[in-house]
Amino acid sequence: MRKSPFLVLVLLLVAGSTLADEGMWTFDNLPAQLVRERHGVELSAGWLARVRRATVRLEGGCTASIASSSGLLLTNHHCVRQCLRELSTPGRDISAAGFLAGKLGAEERCASEQASVLEGMEEITAAVRAAVGDDADPRANERRKAVLTRLEHACEQAGQQRGEPRACEAVTLYGGGQYFLYRYRRYDDVRLVFVPEGEVAFFGGDVDNFQFPRWSLDFALLRLYVDGRPAHTPDFLRWRAAGAADGEPVFVAGHPGSTQRLQTAAQLGFERELILGHWLLRAAELRGRYLQFAAGGSEQARVVEVPLFALENAFKVRRQQMAALLAPGFLAAREREEQALRAAVAADGSLRAAAGAWDEIDAALDRYRGFYDRHVFLEQGAALQGELGTAARLLVRLAGERGKPNEQRQRSFTEAALPLLRQQLLAPGPVHPELEALRLGFSLEKLVEYLGVDDPVARLALGGESPQALAGRLVRETRLADPAFRAQIWDGGQPALERSSDPLLMLALRLEPAALAVRRRYEDEVEAPIRAAEEGLARARFAVLGTSTYPDASFTLRLSYGAVQGWREDGRDIAPFTRLDGLYARATGQPPFRLPARWQQLQSRLDGSTRFNFSTSNDIVGGNSGSPVIDTRGRLVGLAFDGNLHSIAGDYGYDARLNRAVSVHPAAMLLALRDVYGAGRLLHELTLE
Amino acid sequence: MRKSPFLVLVLLLVAGSTLADEGMWTFDNLPAQLVRERHGVELSAGWLARVRRATVRLEGGCTASIASSSGLLLTNHHCVRQCLRELSTPGRDISAAGFLAGKLGAEERCASEQASVLEGMEEITAAVRAAVGDDADPRANERRKAVLTRLEHACEQAGQQRGEPRACEAVTLYGGGQYFLYRYRRYDDVRLVFVPEGEVAFFGGDVDNFQFPRWSLDFALLRLYVDGRPAHTPDFLRWRAAGAADGEPVFVAGHPGSTQRLQTAAQLGFERELILGHWLLRAAELRGRYLQFAAGGSEQARVVEVPLFALENAFKVRRQQMAALLAPGFLAAREREEQALRAAVAADGSLRAAAGAWDEIDAALDRYRGFYDRHVFLEQGAALQGELGTAARLLVRLAGERGKPNEQRQRSFTEAALPLLRQQLLAPGPVHPELEALRLGFSLEKLVEYLGVDDPVARLALGGESPQALAGRLVRETRLADPAFRAQIWDGGQPALERSSDPLLMLALRLEPAALAVRRRYEDEVEAPIRAAEEGLARARFAVLGTSTYPDASFTLRLSYGAVQGWREDGRDIAPFTRLDGLYARATGQPPFRLPARWQQLQSRLDGSTRFNFSTSNDIVGGNSGSPVIDTRGRLVGLAFDGNLHSIAGDYGYDARLNRAVSVHPAAMLLALRDVYGAGRLLHELTLE
Repeated sequence: MRKSPFLVLVLLLVAGSTLADEGMWTFDNLPAQLVRERHGVELSAGWLARVRRATVRLEGGCTASIASSSGLLLTNHHCVRQCLRELSTPGRDISAAGFLAGKLGAEERCASEQASVLEGMEEITAAVRAAVGDDADPRANERRKAVLTRLEHACEQAGQQRGEPRACEAVTLYGGGQYFLYRYRRYDDVRLVFVPEGEVAFFGGDVDNFQFPRWSLDFALLRLYVDGRPAHTPDFLRWRAAGAADGEPVFVAGHPGSTQRLQTAAQLGFERELILGHWLLRAAELRGRYLQFAAGGSEQARVVEVPLFALENAFKVRRQQMAALLAPGFLAAREREEQALRAAVAADGSLRAAAGAWDEIDAALDRYRGFYDRHVFLEQGAALQGELGTAARLLVRLAGERGKPNEQRQRSFTEAALPLLRQQLLAPGPVHPELEALRLGFSLEKLVEYLGVDDPVARLALGGESPQALAGRLVRETRLADPAFRAQIWDGGQPALERSSDPLLMLALRLEPAALAVRRRYEDEVEAPIRAAEEGLARARFAVLGTSTYPDASFTLRLSYGAVQGWREDGRDIAPFTRLDGLYARATGQPPFRLPARWQQLQSRLDGSTRFNFSTSNDIVGGNSGSPVIDTRGRLVGLAFDGNLHSIAGDYGYDARLNRAVSVHPAAMLLALRDVYGAGRLLHELTLE
Repeated sequence: MRKSPFLVLVLLLVAGSTLADEGMWTFDNLPAQLVRERHGVELSAGWLARVRRATVRLEGGCTASIASSSGLLLTNHHCVRQCLRELSTPGRDISAAGFLAGKLGAEERCASEQASVLEGMEEITAAVRAAVGDDADPRANERRKAVLTRLEHACEQAGQQRGEPRACEAVTLYGGGQYFLYRYRRYDDVRLVFVPEGEVAFFGGDVDNFQFPRWSLDFALLRLYVDGRPAHTPDFLRWRAAGAADGEPVFVAGHPGSTQRLQTAAQLGFERELILGHWLLRAAELRGRYLQFAAGGSEQARVVEVPLFALENAFKVRRQQMAALLAPGFLAAREREEQALRAAVAADGSLRAAAGAWDEIDAALDRYRGFYDRHVFLEQGAALQGELGTAARLLVRLAGERGKPNEQRQRSFTEAALPLLRQQLLAPGPVHPELEALRLGFSLEKLVEYLGVDDPVARLALGGESPQALAGRLVRETRLADPAFRAQIWDGGQPALERSSDPLLMLALRLEPAALAVRRRYEDEVEAPIRAAEEGLARARFAVLGTSTYPDASFTLRLSYGAVQGWREDGRDIAPFTRLDGLYARATGQPPFRLPARWQQLQSRLDGSTRFNFSTSNDIVGGNSGSPVIDTRGRLVGLAFDGNLHSIAGDYGYDARLNRAVSVHPAAMLLALRDVYGAGRLLHELTLE
């Protein structure tokens, strides 16, 4: 690579922060030198391979690690909430009461969950580029999607022919700077083995969420099954009961969901103005409705628990992100970095193609501003929220897409994507009519508020009824709460759909042309030019900075390096470990600081000095929940479940002084299994060191 | 005034927009030349004096006009909502059903309302400056408040000695560039005469609020009383039944509440980041709670109506303001204007004192950022919302302040301020325990969320209880719902307060030291330096621009000029008038588009071509609600009740292409009184032309 003093300056400006414990690195491009320099650690190929095969993606949106050769999985309690909800009934609330399968046969299936282990990855950038051709061509975007679908399909078929069933996924990195094909072993039978009571798993509730010091026993055990028997999983992580010491280097393997670190200042401005701004206001109102609904009684509180948790968690994240983007100087600093890269691009004739990228992104965002709300409501589902509304939209879209050749389908409806979609949609989860009416009514009200009551689509949706009246009627009359009916529509396709005359399906069908139109507009006027511009920027960044950067998160496997570490804030040192006695000191007896009866009774018999939660400098975000924290010898020394408040702005960048990941200590989990829950069978299965 | 080409450029940049129908002008400084040039109108001293004396400030936050010599007032339905709430009971919902006093004796008193007519204004800038002395002195801020209080008090006493009771108010203009003493005739007996049904007054509800074309009959009639008899009001406005023609010049006299047009870019950034940002998120959540509460039944819907309307109205305003401040380029444009003024200041040695003003404001805002939430919760009342919580805070503060000499009191608790405060606090309004528990519980939850559960003040407030449990208990146990108890505490002062052991009063008392501490900090570290800097900026603006600008709104009497005018948007022309037949066309039978039975039945007998609402180019904001729209001959041609959506960003500036005021047409009000409500007595009292 050519280097000039100017380019070195740019490099320092743009990549300066990678001197800290920053980055969510792909397993093929680890910054070995940085890890060596900062932590004196050399990761072997064997270490990497074993960690990769022992790290599991939960398709519901989390990570897990394999804890035994019989498919035992360790993840967070908050990662199995949907499963707990599906397995609970009015008389049996395992989300509150916890669950322990006394024997193998008592482990219960999580109907909508699947799990994947990454078996291999292959770069396909050249093949994609060849198929796409000229980026400026209006149809380039479609050709790009088609080739990704084709390569996935070919990969899956090759596996079938060899008798090695696999799931294949095309992965876009660096905004299109690189393309990979990831091959997964996929498990569609995942069962619940153990969870503690909700009160201790989510101790401190939303109040303490993203806070540290912290005392949450946020763990759960699952098991992978194949053909009705526990999966054989030779690669698993032994647990190091004593955990890691203060300052010790540790690694987090997992699936960070998404970050925006490579976006332009204008994209972040759009994020602030519309994406976060509008979402937060709607989410806050829905939160108020959920909380008031929960105040109606204990059964209402129970049924709203899962959506409320998801909402409050996302709300806290996005509120903090908004704060970061509104803080004086934040965007200005990003603009200065951008100016440096722009100057480098302008100075290098070979990068001329990228010079216009920023303006092209600006222009695309300006167009998007004109129909952003319409896109969110009609195509991103904001107009029909809830289990029933989501099912209706999916079934209507599916019926249309399945009529097309695989490569012409939307990427979420390709043959490769359908098995998971089907399992999730047909899972026999409970549907609560009162809550569904609340969510659907709220959606329709917001549709009217954002698009305007005189908008043709709003009129088409309401047909003269008020949002609340319409929502109440649809929830009463639709048959979509019945999994058998959903299966019948799935299997019957467009004819079954039209024959059904189900009023909620009919509403989704009425809105479908407008939804498809706004999707088309988005793809052509926003997605395509931005993708092309981002590819140009990625090439320019590679030319200037090499591959010393990492791609934005994309819910694919990454490794983060760091150390057990507290931080300093407002003149105070925050120590990296909490202890069990701190949990008891914080318990007030009132939610969300109430302990389960069992924990209250055992207080005097448990060792108060047991380490409970701890903080590390690893750079993680949502999707890393359930990730193993691993020492240099490949042993599990923690279970990541959260970050501190500062880590939330990690969506836009990592601040080494303040960003910390927060994990459950293995000593706390072992104490719980042994001394609180008497889970001898599971303890016996773990390999401890 | 010295002029240079550079300064002329600055003038055009900073004041350029005053070439449009912009401005909320004080009656002593009208832009006579601009009005002449734009509209060919010369306003006589007689016109101005009569309009001033016929325009009334409703202390609840609105404007009214005098419509007869017997004290009849015209204002908006939405301006009397609090009164309707106070006069309604579970069996008699006049907010929904409307109200018509068949005879004088049937007019009912609005217990918490007062009304004021501006009788005179006197500039006191020199006296204030002399008393304040050196602005940089840390105690200058206190001396400023003391002299304002002293001048008000002297003014009121002088009035009493002459047997002319008056209310006097010191008014700060141009951020302290000018001070005035305003003398008011105040009426503390205001009675309800007529309101239409809520469904037609607020037709379209929150959905149509700030929209145009529009069909709202948002009017009400009140009457001023003196000694139990209708007030004698020789200056009143005749009504011009035909209204004004398209393009005709019209004036709006009223009391715009507040604007931020003279604030620096950094102040607007702070507004966006914290003031609007935090408020909107809390308001959205509270809105969700209110709406879900209202879904509980018709009685719940009734009792939540007034706070819900206030909240949704403010929410729509602030959401639109936030959108303006987030729009690309908005703040950047303000910064460019600011740079021009800074350059002019730097170039003029005599303005050197103002050169540091911007940096001083930045520094003060940085300090404020560190305790903004604490200030909002403890001192601005966010921690104890609701009727009961507000009463508790007021009574606790009052007891402390009344022990001090008048001039040392907080400005809201001076002798001049107490009569209105007392009347509002002791008004026998209904208190709804369920709603109070919701509001108080919400406040305490947010206190914990924003300050943190471990904050000493949050702990002091909760004392180990959960926010909801504490709120429920306080509402059950407090006696503050009883007006006699409130009067007893008001009269008994600190000893009565402490003796009461009322739990809600005790909570407010416990929080009082922290509230006073944060207030002190705000006054010393934020308010004082910003006020000093703003005075410097005001002087610099006067030096560069003269008094060709108008001061920011301050809920004092202003005049706006303009014309009946539609606007062009998205390639469409919006016509300035709507008609009665449009109202019927829009009625769906479903709230908020349902008409009262009476209006449904009469449809065929009413003249569909009657003008209903109309738009004008006048520059108005909240507080102008209820303002008369007046023609060049001083006749009432409309009743302002709203602006279009664009007008909301009028808080920060006026856009002549898009900002429009929205008013009720006199023909619609007369048709309603005559043909719908049969209000012959009132029609007879009006003077029509």
